[in-house]
Amino acid sequence: MATNADRYPLLSGIESPADLRAMPESDLPAVCEEIRRFLIDHLSVNPGHFASSMGAVELTVALHYVFNTPYDRIVWDVGHQAYGHKILTGRRDRFVDNRKFGGLSGFPNPDESIYDTFMAGHASNSISAALGMAVATTLQGETPRRNIVAVIGDASISGGLAFEGINNAANTPNNMLVILNDNDMSIDDNVGSLNSYLAHLTTSRPYNRIRYRLYRLLRRLHLISEGKKDRILRFNNSLKALLTKQHNIFEGLNIRYFGPFDGHDIHTIVRVLRDIRDMDGPRLLHLRTIKGKGYAPAESNPTPWHAPGRFDPATGAREAEKKKDTPSPMKYQDVFGHTLLELARKDPKIVAITAAMASGTSISTMQRVFPDRVFDVGISEGHALTFAGGLAKEGMRPVVGIYSSFLQRAYDNLIHDIAILRLPVTLCIDRAGLVGEDGVTHHGIFDLSYLRAVPNLIVAAPSDAETLRALMYAAIGSTPVGPFAIRYPRGSSDITALPCDTPEPLPIGRGRQLRFGADASIVTIGTIASEADAAIRSLHSAGIEAAHFDMIFLKPLDTALLDRAAASGAPVITVEDGTVNGGLGSAVAEYFAEKGYTNPLVCLGIPDRYVTQGSIAQLRRLCGIDADSIAVAVREAVLKSKEK
Amino acid sequence: MATNADRYPLLSGIESPADLRAMPESDLPAVCEEIRRFLIDHLSVNPGHFASSMGAVELTVALHYVFNTPYDRIVWDVGHQAYGHKILTGRRDRFVDNRKFGGLSGFPNPDESIYDTFMAGHASNSISAALGMAVATTLQGETPRRNIVAVIGDASISGGLAFEGINNAANTPNNMLVILNDNDMSIDDNVGSLNSYLAHLTTSRPYNRIRYRLYRLLRRLHLISEGKKDRILRFNNSLKALLTKQHNIFEGLNIRYFGPFDGHDIHTIVRVLRDIRDMDGPRLLHLRTIKGKGYAPAESNPTPWHAPGRFDPATGAREAEKKKDTPSPMKYQDVFGHTLLELARKDPKIVAITAAMASGTSISTMQRVFPDRVFDVGISEGHALTFAGGLAKEGMRPVVGIYSSFLQRAYDNLIHDIAILRLPVTLCIDRAGLVGEDGVTHHGIFDLSYLRAVPNLIVAAPSDAETLRALMYAAIGSTPVGPFAIRYPRGSSDITALPCDTPEPLPIGRGRQLRFGADASIVTIGTIASEADAAIRSLHSAGIEAAHFDMIFLKPLDTALLDRAAASGAPVITVEDGTVNGGLGSAVAEYFAEKGYTNPLVCLGIPDRYVTQGSIAQLRRLCGIDADSIAVAVREAVLKSKEK
Repeated sequence: MATNADRYPLLSGIESPADLRAMPESDLPAVCEEIRRFLIDHLSVNPGHFASSMGAVELTVALHYVFNTPYDRIVWDVGHQAYGHKILTGRRDRFVDNRKFGGLSGFPNPDESIYDTFMAGHASNSISAALGMAVATTLQGETPRRNIVAVIGDASISGGLAFEGINNAANTPNNMLVILNDNDMSIDDNVGSLNSYLAHLTTSRPYNRIRYRLYRLLRRLHLISEGKKDRILRFNNSLKALLTKQHNIFEGLNIRYFGPFDGHDIHTIVRVLRDIRDMDGPRLLHLRTIKGKGYAPAESNPTPWHAPGRFDPATGAREAEKKKDTPSPMKYQDVFGHTLLELARKDPKIVAITAAMASGTSISTMQRVFPDRVFDVGISEGHALTFAGGLAKEGMRPVVGIYSSFLQRAYDNLIHDIAILRLPVTLCIDRAGLVGEDGVTHHGIFDLSYLRAVPNLIVAAPSDAETLRALMYAAIGSTPVGPFAIRYPRGSSDITALPCDTPEPLPIGRGRQLRFGADASIVTIGTIASEADAAIRSLHSAGIEAAHFDMIFLKPLDTALLDRAAASGAPVITVEDGTVNGGLGSAVAEYFAEKGYTNPLVCLGIPDRYVTQGSIAQLRRLCGIDADSIAVAVREAVLKSKEK
Repeated sequence: MATNADRYPLLSGIESPADLRAMPESDLPAVCEEIRRFLIDHLSVNPGHFASSMGAVELTVALHYVFNTPYDRIVWDVGHQAYGHKILTGRRDRFVDNRKFGGLSGFPNPDESIYDTFMAGHASNSISAALGMAVATTLQGETPRRNIVAVIGDASISGGLAFEGINNAANTPNNMLVILNDNDMSIDDNVGSLNSYLAHLTTSRPYNRIRYRLYRLLRRLHLISEGKKDRILRFNNSLKALLTKQHNIFEGLNIRYFGPFDGHDIHTIVRVLRDIRDMDGPRLLHLRTIKGKGYAPAESNPTPWHAPGRFDPATGAREAEKKKDTPSPMKYQDVFGHTLLELARKDPKIVAITAAMASGTSISTMQRVFPDRVFDVGISEGHALTFAGGLAKEGMRPVVGIYSSFLQRAYDNLIHDIAILRLPVTLCIDRAGLVGEDGVTHHGIFDLSYLRAVPNLIVAAPSDAETLRALMYAAIGSTPVGPFAIRYPRGSSDITALPCDTPEPLPIGRGRQLRFGADASIVTIGTIASEADAAIRSLHSAGIEAAHFDMIFLKPLDTALLDRAAASGAPVITVEDGTVNGGLGSAVAEYFAEKGYTNPLVCLGIPDRYVTQGSIAQLRRLCGIDADSIAVAVREAVLKSKEK
């Protein structure tokens, strides 16, 4: 699917933004249309994030048209919206491999392109990063002036990190421009009441001419010094307030605000960007956009079209919607979602919290039935956990559904606001381990390690759907036992329907032996057990009999089970889909040292480096935790131990 | 110093807030005066946080007077300000042991008193926690209505977590009251322009009567449903805006705002609290206070009086200011501060960042000389790191000075915004290990563990001042080597003055052998080396010769040095002042497993539980990492190993 000059007459000639900038402005609407066509052509076949990038097409084209990229920097906040950017910056023909192993990353990544200026996998970081870059260029006195532009969505800007960035933007000289790509109405009602005349007034040259003349006058009269900048800025804002009779949150935080403008009117965006490009000081431009713009099915129902999977471009039928003849396995997230609802029906004290991931975590299942007991707090993972701590302190049984890599943002909240007080908050940690196509920023490979360090916390990982259910009953369905973390992966479980019977709550800190064998003991935690099981079958045909111990709990550690695993003196191989630094392998190594066990010990896990995107199978192989790699490791350990 | 009825005629009769509430309102000013006297009497002798609690006296008295504590909940944000609260809630006579081992915690702690409703060691968590508690009481339909009050300072409210809490406050039914204890001018200029008449208008009964009548009317006309609450709130805010011609940030976020009022006028505070106590929905009351109020030396110079140490109540002379005859050892923070300045003089690309801890980290030393290259970003640790990432991305050499326990708040920023891109950001992590009197929320005991899990990161801990300097030269003074974390403790180092010579940058990942001995190998990281050294001396007199290996780097691990430590086959004892789960001991256990070393291995560190307050010496003994405990552990390991 190389870029066809018939289908993409303009786009096929754009090898870099310089080619775009050489075009007349009148060509830009057609370029936008071709980018949308390109996105539909490609994403209908090779799934990815669709609606966000469709909504950001005009903005993307205008940015590369007005700004001198890559000298000027565009910092994308969450790369969902950045496909157009990738297409315009020399990666059009590689887009067929988007999100694939060895292909383009699904998010901006500076290791991939000079046009990608920062990591953009976790939301809300763009303003802080762009501010750092803008301050750096100011300090270094670069000429020509380098412009730094952060592009952030209205959901991301609600994160505390974005607020911290905004709150610090006016403290120090810089020329950061923040573009708020707003496809919702959630920011501020006052803002919505500004009319386009006033908006035009604030961005047009006469207003700024007055402003600069005043500034220059004041400086000549020695009324301005560095320390007085804040006051001048406030003065300017007061002036604008006088003209517009409006305040808004951003102006209150000393950021000059422009907007809102129609984010699909390319000529307006180009004009406004040119107007405000060379101004000094932090500015925010507010654009209203429509998620999925230009593709009717996505416009009318943007949520499933965020990442729609494969679809028929002509009809908008998504493959995921098709009824299948054979029952398909339930996802782990749905095992969680339905079990949560089941438990919530029995106990009114159970409440659930998600940070903008109601569908992704399947907390939506409970939300549909008990909307008043489910709290979507937006992108604010720290708040999600502290809020849960407060709920638990007053007797509720909160369950936080959260992705593993996003839980990293709430580490202190877990330690300080939950675990010290032994509050019965249950963390249901989805997308743990390798997540596949979302890649380096999204793998949940640190959780076992950083959670094990937290006192008072129970840390568990089920090896199958039934165990996930039993763990949830132990954590939420019984007398509170304190803070409880359950981590499970993205993707399909081993069941096609929820069992009717209520699981027995598992005893805390008790694992189980799944297989017997005298030549080696394989110790696993979580669903990586299936790879170990496959390894054991292949080892069996090679004449090696390995036992299999499923720890279920990382903490408290089932030391009696480990005693059994070590009893024969045979090699012990631990396997986990988390970092080798500090997780299960470490716990076993510590315990063996403590007991003086001298069994050969091999610890398999994610090596101490970041992991790229690809299918989970590809990545497990890459990391040496697939069945084949496990079998090789066990065989080597057994041979080595017999040699001795 | 038991409470003397002559010196504290009213206070001596207050055993609980119920006694306070039985008093006539006319007595309250005298109660406030006695609390101030009590604070001066006690804190001049037994050091603690002074100025914040002095500034919050009227607020504290008014809260317990108007609200029905402990049924109503007060959630303090950072306990610096909560000494008055402790004194009024049955802990007056125990206050002599404030911050001591076995005594009162320096911060509110629910394990200590039913009046302490949440942990309050780390800033900005009160709104999220209070919101959780307020939602819980609403969901449980408690009668009588339970009021939840968060008390937050103007510095804490700048943290992203507080913003997330505010941003979520209006999403769900609750009766949270936030009190902004504002002793600065940093919030919003608009707010400052509200006059007391308008403030009175908005809190007085006529206004609210109109409001409630409107609300009731609309409900009768079926114009209100749960889903329309937001709109009603906006309507109310519009009404108020109409009356006051003012908007502000909080109203923009749908929180009803009252204030500002004089936070030292007890009668006003009592009146306003009574006016707004029974209103529905989230509210914010803004009080202006003066840090150190009531004690002239503290009022005029609040920064050193935040935690002044011992002082003479009559003259205000602080013991810390007295010139000493013998040179005293430099604090580690000052070795850092001066070395940073030394490096910054040589390289203009070096910039420094602190999150509201310029003095505490001694980043102030560089700040005085290069104010434009030092960024105090306020309480926003996440932003501090991402901002540093942005600076580094554009070629600067940022150094973040941060306390270990607060770095927990920026874990994802480290992983996602710094380490993935191998950006040369140096983290200088102060207050690592046990911190002493600040207690359970402030010990920096998780860092070695959670940092070791981060790929691309160099993790080091010097055993003495000279090594700290050499590490800083390796991290900041040379060609960038990627992200670099250096952790060091609170308190005195081993030098009294900075050496004149420039240290050689240490080779990355290389430790050193400090002592030789064949009976055992002690492996340490960081300044806990001194305890190991003392242990070795006492073991020597008992006829046991232990070698001592100073790792310096946790990551990359000096495996050659570990090979030497293990070579004799003698027992290896690791010692660290961090959790036993995942740090140095784990790294050594993993490595020994990998190599098949069978030396007896004993891992000493902070046990897997939270640690109380006390002197560092007391706490090291408690955790079994003082010289005596190390010596005992070594002796036992040696005896056991010889028995075999």
